[in-house]
Amino acid sequence: MQTEIPGTPRPFTLACPRPLQQHPRVLLAHGGGGLLMRQLLESLFLPAFQSPELDARHDGADLRVGGARLAFTTDSYVVRPLFFPGGDIGTLAVNGTVNDLAMCGARPLYLSCGFILEEGLPTSDLDRVVRSMRAAADAAGVRLVTGDTKVVDRGGADGLFVNTSGIGAIGHDLVIAPASVQPGDALIISGDIGRHGMAIMAVREGLEFETPLASDCAPLAEPALALLAAGVRVHCLRDLTRGGLASALCEIAEAGGLAIQVDERAIPVRPETAAACEILGLDPLHVACEGRFLAIVHADDADRALEVLRAHPVTAGAVQIGQTGAGEPRVTLRSRIGTTRIVEMLTGEQLPRIC
Amino acid sequence: MQTEIPGTPRPFTLACPRPLQQHPRVLLAHGGGGLLMRQLLESLFLPAFQSPELDARHDGADLRVGGARLAFTTDSYVVRPLFFPGGDIGTLAVNGTVNDLAMCGARPLYLSCGFILEEGLPTSDLDRVVRSMRAAADAAGVRLVTGDTKVVDRGGADGLFVNTSGIGAIGHDLVIAPASVQPGDALIISGDIGRHGMAIMAVREGLEFETPLASDCAPLAEPALALLAAGVRVHCLRDLTRGGLASALCEIAEAGGLAIQVDERAIPVRPETAAACEILGLDPLHVACEGRFLAIVHADDADRALEVLRAHPVTAGAVQIGQTGAGEPRVTLRSRIGTTRIVEMLTGEQLPRIC
Repeated sequence: MQTEIPGTPRPFTLACPRPLQQHPRVLLAHGGGGLLMRQLLESLFLPAFQSPELDARHDGADLRVGGARLAFTTDSYVVRPLFFPGGDIGTLAVNGTVNDLAMCGARPLYLSCGFILEEGLPTSDLDRVVRSMRAAADAAGVRLVTGDTKVVDRGGADGLFVNTSGIGAIGHDLVIAPASVQPGDALIISGDIGRHGMAIMAVREGLEFETPLASDCAPLAEPALALLAAGVRVHCLRDLTRGGLASALCEIAEAGGLAIQVDERAIPVRPETAAACEILGLDPLHVACEGRFLAIVHADDADRALEVLRAHPVTAGAVQIGQTGAGEPRVTLRSRIGTTRIVEMLTGEQLPRIC
Repeated sequence: MQTEIPGTPRPFTLACPRPLQQHPRVLLAHGGGGLLMRQLLESLFLPAFQSPELDARHDGADLRVGGARLAFTTDSYVVRPLFFPGGDIGTLAVNGTVNDLAMCGARPLYLSCGFILEEGLPTSDLDRVVRSMRAAADAAGVRLVTGDTKVVDRGGADGLFVNTSGIGAIGHDLVIAPASVQPGDALIISGDIGRHGMAIMAVREGLEFETPLASDCAPLAEPALALLAAGVRVHCLRDLTRGGLASALCEIAEAGGLAIQVDERAIPVRPETAAACEILGLDPLHVACEGRFLAIVHADDADRALEVLRAHPVTAGAVQIGQTGAGEPRVTLRSRIGTTRIVEMLTGEQLPRIC
């Protein structure tokens, strides 16, 4: 049904499908969630570390310890500014790691917290971040159980970086990972995309809109676990952070070895997000969210999944945006004007220091 | 036996026992492992996070997940220079977290790895660090299973920071923590102190010695677990990192609520370390190690513990340096010249960015 039309313009695609030479120095785009980041992973980290858990290319590792099945994940947060509409680096650090655990189908339980502080940081800022973390942890039902603080000299770090790692309990027998996705599965998105990235960008660029943009940062474990509890055959879950929806789709298509078709008209983008994207020339598909995820489920369970998600405030706007198919592992998008284009990862960095 | 002699000079003590006012800005010393760091912990992190695991004030959290007992710990590494005699930031990041797990009496199993890279970092440096991490992980018997990479713009970070968090399995019923220490326990140190800190300092200051100083960075899980396997009644384990032996002793005395007496003549310090300390006016008691630990064991098991430790190359230099007693929680040291002084945590920062 959705075949590619040769010569279709690709207004939003900055991607270059050719593998790039390895760079002698680290570029901002190596951290952007796009193609360069994948190259760094594939050329450097995966060959050196060689573990089946890393090879699974999921948001966290699925482990067994003493008879228990658990998920383990880590993320560092370097967002600038530290405080933004809808959250701060602390809420982001808790929710981001909680969400990575949830995307493994795990119940988030415990977080660690590693601070790197720059000498001269106002302690009131640190205090505010720490309180945000506690509030976010309470909201997500997790406990901060171990920590570390390093201080580097003035000029050695940009104020404050946080790493949170997390442990969650996996209470089911599913393998929730790209490898479990089947042709014919339904792709469901949990809500509108791009608000986190545009909220950060608006603050940085000093943009003001009639409807202020606030980050969508939120914990996603409850709705994700509710899908499992409802018996929905969940094949893969993926939260949409760096690289946005486009990167998540491309990663899953490639890691799962299947085609993905999405319908642009079905993808929810709020008018204020779309307006901000238009002003700055950005594609919402590539803009980060921090409270949205993609659920890939058995097609027969799609309606049930939507019903479950819509019962939770944070996923009330869930909709099906496409489906998977057999064929070449790539992502095709049927645009608003009816044309079809291939969605690719960014090669450059659209918006650094977003999380 | 070891009473304090009034008027005894305290040549090595830079500590101020009075609580300091909270500082409006973060100082380097807030990350130094001394009194200011403890104040930051007590005035900010512990009240905000309030968890029994943090209150235990140990190197890692002792958790239950799905019937399994496990240890969970985190550390960020910001050492400068990235490469130094005896190791680099990668070996340090693996061994440091492996050792924190070992100090919980856990078998280290899985590590996460979060990189914060500065734009412009030579990828060859990153490659070298990553290979070191893999080699150190293999040596310690752990697997790097999940990771994250962020890149910050030039000037936003000092080249490369690493966070490693770790999970270990606890296979015994002991509570290895300051609260388990009893009066009359034996204090055993696993080898000579201060080499890591002085190796870093020598590189930074461009000092050269006839006998080059190399870091003592090493994994400690095997000897620590061997103590448990041999049936030694281990009450507390603590690796000696920031703040050195002095901070470890003070923390345990305070958290365990008991007196500690140590004999300076028994504390092993290599001549080259002592010479470097003398040149720079530093007290070896306050200098960081990265491959040394303190084992506090039932007095009747001290000989057995020494025998077990001496059978492992990394702890071949183990000796008893003192014992615990009832009384006011403080650390007294009988000096080489026969006087007795109180050992205190540093209030300032002797040597920043050591790990």
